[in-house]
Amino acid sequence: MIIQGIVNPHVQSLLCRVRHTNTLVIADAAFPFWPQIETVDLSLVRGIPTVIQVLDAILPNWKGGEAFMAEEFTAHNDRTQQAAFKRACRGLKMTFESHLEFKNRVPHAIGLIRTGDTTAYGNVILVSV
Amino acid sequence: MIIQGIVNPHVQSLLCRVRHTNTLVIADAAFPFWPQIETVDLSLVRGIPTVIQVLDAILPNWKGGEAFMAEEFTAHNDRTQQAAFKRACRGLKMTFESHLEFKNRVPHAIGLIRTGDTTAYGNVILVSV
Amino acid sequence: MIIQGIVNPHVQSLLCRVRHTNTLVIADAAFPFWPQIETVDLSLVRGIPTVIQVLDAILPNWKGGEAFMAEEFTAHNDRTQQAAFKRACRGLKMTFESHLEFKNRVPHAIGLIRTGDTTAYGNVILVSV
Amino acid sequence: MIIQGIVNPHVQSLLCRVRHTNTLVIADAAFPFWPQIETVDLSLVRGIPTVIQVLDAILPNWKGGEAFMAEEFTAHNDRTQQAAFKRACRGLKMTFESHLEFKNRVPHAIGLIRTGDTTAYGNVILVSV
Amino acid sequence: MIIQGIVNPHVQSLLCRVRHTNTLVIADAAFPFWPQIETVDLSLVRGIPTVIQVLDAILPNWKGGEAFMAEEFTAHNDRTQQAAFKRACRGLKMTFESHLEFKNRVPHAIGLIRTGDTTAYGNVILVSV
Amino acid sequence: MIIQGIVNPHVQSLLCRVRHTNTLVIADAAFPFWPQIETVDLSLVRGIPTVIQVLDAILPNWKGGEAFMAEEFTAHNDRTQQAAFKRACRGLKMTFESHLEFKNRVPHAIGLIRTGDTTAYGNVILVSV
Amino acid sequence: MIIQGIVNPHVQSLLCRVRHTNTLVIADAAFPFWPQIETVDLSLVRGIPTVIQVLDAILPNWKGGEAFMAEEFTAHNDRTQQAAFKRACRGLKMTFESHLEFKNRVPHAIGLIRTGDTTAYGNVILVSV
Amino acid sequence: MIIQGIVNPHVQSLLCRVRHTNTLVIADAAFPFWPQIETVDLSLVRGIPTVIQVLDAILPNWKGGEAFMAEEFTAHNDRTQQAAFKRACRGLKMTFESHLEFKNRVPHAIGLIRTGDTTAYGNVILVSV
Amino acid sequence: MIIQGIVNPHVQSLLCRVRHTNTLVIADAAFPFWPQIETVDLSLVRGIPTVIQVLDAILPNWKGGEAFMAEEFTAHNDRTQQAAFKRACRGLKMTFESHLEFKNRVPHAIGLIRTGDTTAYGNVILVSV
Amino acid sequence: MIIQGIVNPHVQSLLCRVRHTNTLVIADAAFPFWPQIETVDLSLVRGIPTVIQVLDAILPNWKGGEAFMAEEFTAHNDRTQQAAFKRACRGLKMTFESHLEFKNRVPHAIGLIRTGDTTAYGNVILVSV
Repeated sequence: MIIQGIVNPHVQSLLCRVRHTNTLVIADAAFPFWPQIETVDLSLVRGIPTVIQVLDAILPNWKGGEAFMAEEFTAHNDRTQQAAFKRACRGLKMTFESHLEFKNRVPHAIGLIRTGDTTAYGNVILVSV
Repeated sequence: MIIQGIVNPHVQSLLCRVRHTNTLVIADAAFPFWPQIETVDLSLVRGIPTVIQVLDAILPNWKGGEAFMAEEFTAHNDRTQQAAFKRACRGLKMTFESHLEFKNRVPHAIGLIRTGDTTAYGNVILVSV
Repeated sequence: MIIQGIVNPHVQSLLCRVRHTNTLVIADAAFPFWPQIETVDLSLVRGIPTVIQVLDAILPNWKGGEAFMAEEFTAHNDRTQQAAFKRACRGLKMTFESHLEFKNRVPHAIGLIRTGDTTAYGNVILVSV
Repeated sequence: MIIQGIVNPHVQSLLCRVRHTNTLVIADAAFPFWPQIETVDLSLVRGIPTVIQVLDAILPNWKGGEAFMAEEFTAHNDRTQQAAFKRACRGLKMTFESHLEFKNRVPHAIGLIRTGDTTAYGNVILVSV
Repeated sequence: MIIQGIVNPHVQSLLCRVRHTNTLVIADAAFPFWPQIETVDLSLVRGIPTVIQVLDAILPNWKGGEAFMAEEFTAHNDRTQQAAFKRACRGLKMTFESHLEFKNRVPHAIGLIRTGDTTAYGNVILVSV
Repeated sequence: MIIQGIVNPHVQSLLCRVRHTNTLVIADAAFPFWPQIETVDLSLVRGIPTVIQVLDAILPNWKGGEAFMAEEFTAHNDRTQQAAFKRACRGLKMTFESHLEFKNRVPHAIGLIRTGDTTAYGNVILVSV
Repeated sequence: MIIQGIVNPHVQSLLCRVRHTNTLVIADAAFPFWPQIETVDLSLVRGIPTVIQVLDAILPNWKGGEAFMAEEFTAHNDRTQQAAFKRACRGLKMTFESHLEFKNRVPHAIGLIRTGDTTAYGNVILVSV
Repeated sequence: MIIQGIVNPHVQSLLCRVRHTNTLVIADAAFPFWPQIETVDLSLVRGIPTVIQVLDAILPNWKGGEAFMAEEFTAHNDRTQQAAFKRACRGLKMTFESHLEFKNRVPHAIGLIRTGDTTAYGNVILVSV
Repeated sequence: MIIQGIVNPHVQSLLCRVRHTNTLVIADAAFPFWPQIETVDLSLVRGIPTVIQVLDAILPNWKGGEAFMAEEFTAHNDRTQQAAFKRACRGLKMTFESHLEFKNRVPHAIGLIRTGDTTAYGNVILVSV
Repeated sequence: MIIQGIVNPHVQSLLCRVRHTNTLVIADAAFPFWPQIETVDLSLVRGIPTVIQVLDAILPNWKGGEAFMAEEFTAHNDRTQQAAFKRACRGLKMTFESHLEFKNRVPHAIGLIRTGDTTAYGNVILVSV
């Protein structure tokens, strides 16, 4: 039995398939459903788990790259929440763009991990180096 | 979009298929893998989510029935932890039996929800009325 | 066993996958078949179940959004029937458009629940907030 | 488009596969789930549709045979309900046996149609001539 | 066991999925194969069964609509054969168009029932009301 | 396009897989459904096609072997019908046994071709040389 | 067990699906792989079987139509080889076109039978009448 | 493109899965069909290809082991044929046993390659070292 | 993109499913094929990769447990090779048993990782704590 | 059991399907994931196995053709590494093009073998003669 790290078989399989220039969506509970994107749904009820918990699980073993979020995230969340997401991104270059532009990236993603997060516009797209 | 309750499609589908006398396993992170049992794996890392979070999500809309746990759970956990599981079971009749007897129930289950819980012997089998 | 709410596994799974801006079609018995849309067929014979029964099952746990129907619905049904559908929509903003426009929305839907309803043009498209 | 009779593709397909000596289960909402039996789940919420609605749909085009129910059905339902089920069986020979014996027939069934019926022990097994 | 009507599970399932404006192809033995169209192949050898036998099975429980055939059918068959197809169509509005136009309808069909019929251009497309 | 012989892809595929000592069931419309046996369902309505039509299609290119039927076939059919089946078997050694013994052979068959035949006990099991 | 003709289940199934205007590719060992075309791969090693053996198996029961080959076949093979292919085509109208044009036909084919043949440009496309 | 050796993807995949103590059946055209055994069917018509052609393709790159055949092979074939099979086995230890014992080995095989061979009892089971 | 650790999606998925008391087989190139066991085949040619490379990849993040090998491994390998395997097992309790007993464990394993290793009896079964 | 050459069933199957003009990608560990391309993932950890090991396995039995690499490979690797790749290509005509042009070839490939190689731009596309 493995000791540490992510223990979910589907999440691990997906992470091994995100490589150079590939993107991965970490979505909140209400983010639209994309039938054509491979989805790992970890949600239980609203609030469990959070996007930050998923970032905390993935990023310690993640190689550089960028993170995208919707500009609307900044407008709809207070400083504490914004700081928490920034910290969770562990120094990745963060780009904020319109929610529409953000959603245009989804069809090109390798996969999407859905959480139960209720943060407004609390979705993050990781682009691998 | 639904307002409240469980938001995970696979968990909801599974719950609708647990009926009279059927059983459902809520397993901790380390509980053996049972390839022949339909499994919803909600685990992310150790500790996320917990078995109690799953019970809290399911039992408010759950009809009576029983709950089974391993006797070893009592021996390996302090009173606080034991009380927390009892409270989470919301008055269901709880039966403690040997871990071996407990595991003999698994092959007859309709499904298993795996968590990241690290509570020793923190597995619960719900038997529907 | 769950106590209340929708007891159908496929309907529950589908509802959990309708999120921000996603749409869901509730169709009468004669609405065209769309092979490319995930379909839950609840119909038995003409009249069982009705579109209103499905709305009554879904909307108590449904977050705002809009409802679309064909304009032809108004022309082909009396006031009682129109009032019944309005009541069933529980205050959702209702938009009536041509049947052709209505059908153009279907290919973008997350899923379709087919009933046995015989109300003329008795189809409703729910758009999630 | 067909004019009359059962309009559900899966129900129709199943009925065409029930032949000499084959059996078909019409189950209430709470009847145990049998993963190994082909199941058409028509349930929406408790009460929709009923077992009698399914019998009314099937039996007008059904050739003789028998119907089995649990003895417990008689003990737990009043005369009106009993008469309704009898009428719905349209003269089929009805046999009442213990719920345990009744359930032993299920694994041999060709299929099971699940309803939302809440009648106590309101399950019927049709055995084809 | 059902008493009368179509006894083939696949044909029945297909018919239940042909609804408003949907089309169904009844093809002779030599009509081109369309891999992308759901096909029920009832053919045994040339001549068994015929397109008219399929029409006779379907149309008694079929709601209005139209029937399309190739103009070439008229040129290649005598009056008796033409009358037989007309009778089999039971008063449906029949439209004759070029074989090319006729074949352009096929990719939009819900399904195709293949027979062993050897009538020249003996293919019929049913369009549901 | 092939000129003569069986034109049904599934029937042809099945026939190529019936070899030394393998058996093939040709069943009437009402013969029990065997979910575990590969089945080609050629039935349309009662009477179409017949078991004899299937035998006439298969046996001209069939190497010796035996044919089994139920003894009850003899009791329930007149001489004309019996003679027709005998002729259709084209000199194969025919063995009549109890319907129960006959049905015990089915689970060992390579496949089953279902017809719409209504001849009482009109089922034939071909055993390849 | 069938007496004569093609004994391969997949080849027989494919042939029954090649009808009016449909095409079938008989390919040599080195012909490009077309993942989107249903392929029956009969090859063992180079030289086994040959394209001519496949033509000899198919064409005795084949209705008219045309055969296409690449012009390059003529340039790269001696008279004996050319005569052998012509003989194998049994009077079908043969058209030679550039290898590029030839390959443009492949995506429209119903299927492809791959051989182990090593004849240069030894591929044949049969077009059914 | 590979230069030499077996060019069939399925045969190559199967050979890579035959390892220590595993067995592989090379069957003639009439050998019974075993639905539960992974089968590569290379047969075209009777005689193409032969069992010896398959042995010639496999054994040059085959590590020791044994070969089993039915004793009946010896009784039903002349010396030339026997010698040809022996030569094809390239020094493998050959064991002849009753056809019944031979067939008892089949359900344990990793796979079966079917040929069109017509040699009486011309089946060989290779047991890997 | 992940930085370190196992980069193979299937291996990672399998490891996440090996839990309390579950077993995992690391097999050499020639170990028998077990069709019923989920297999990740990492082999390329003999010698690539080795069992020790797989152990080195897995065990740094592996929780206690035991390792089983065949006694024959000791008899057929020199001290250097034995020491290398022991070192690779990183202090796991190692048990040597007969190759027959060893193979009896395989059908109970969660999965098998096949290597190209050529070490005699170089197979290891890891049993999770 | 085969003696020499590639022992991986999936790799062998893929190689048999790369023919005239078809292409095969040998990718390093970080090369983007292409969900639509059939992928054999041989990677274990970074460095195991290498692209050169795969070339060494494939090219001894490979017929001519070309090899493509990214120009960036030359810029990012020293002479030793460049020489090693050249040697591994065994005289194939090697073409260096921009990484972008290189990646444009991937969607047309028959398959992709992923390694654990960490060589910068260490990807090779083999084009078959």
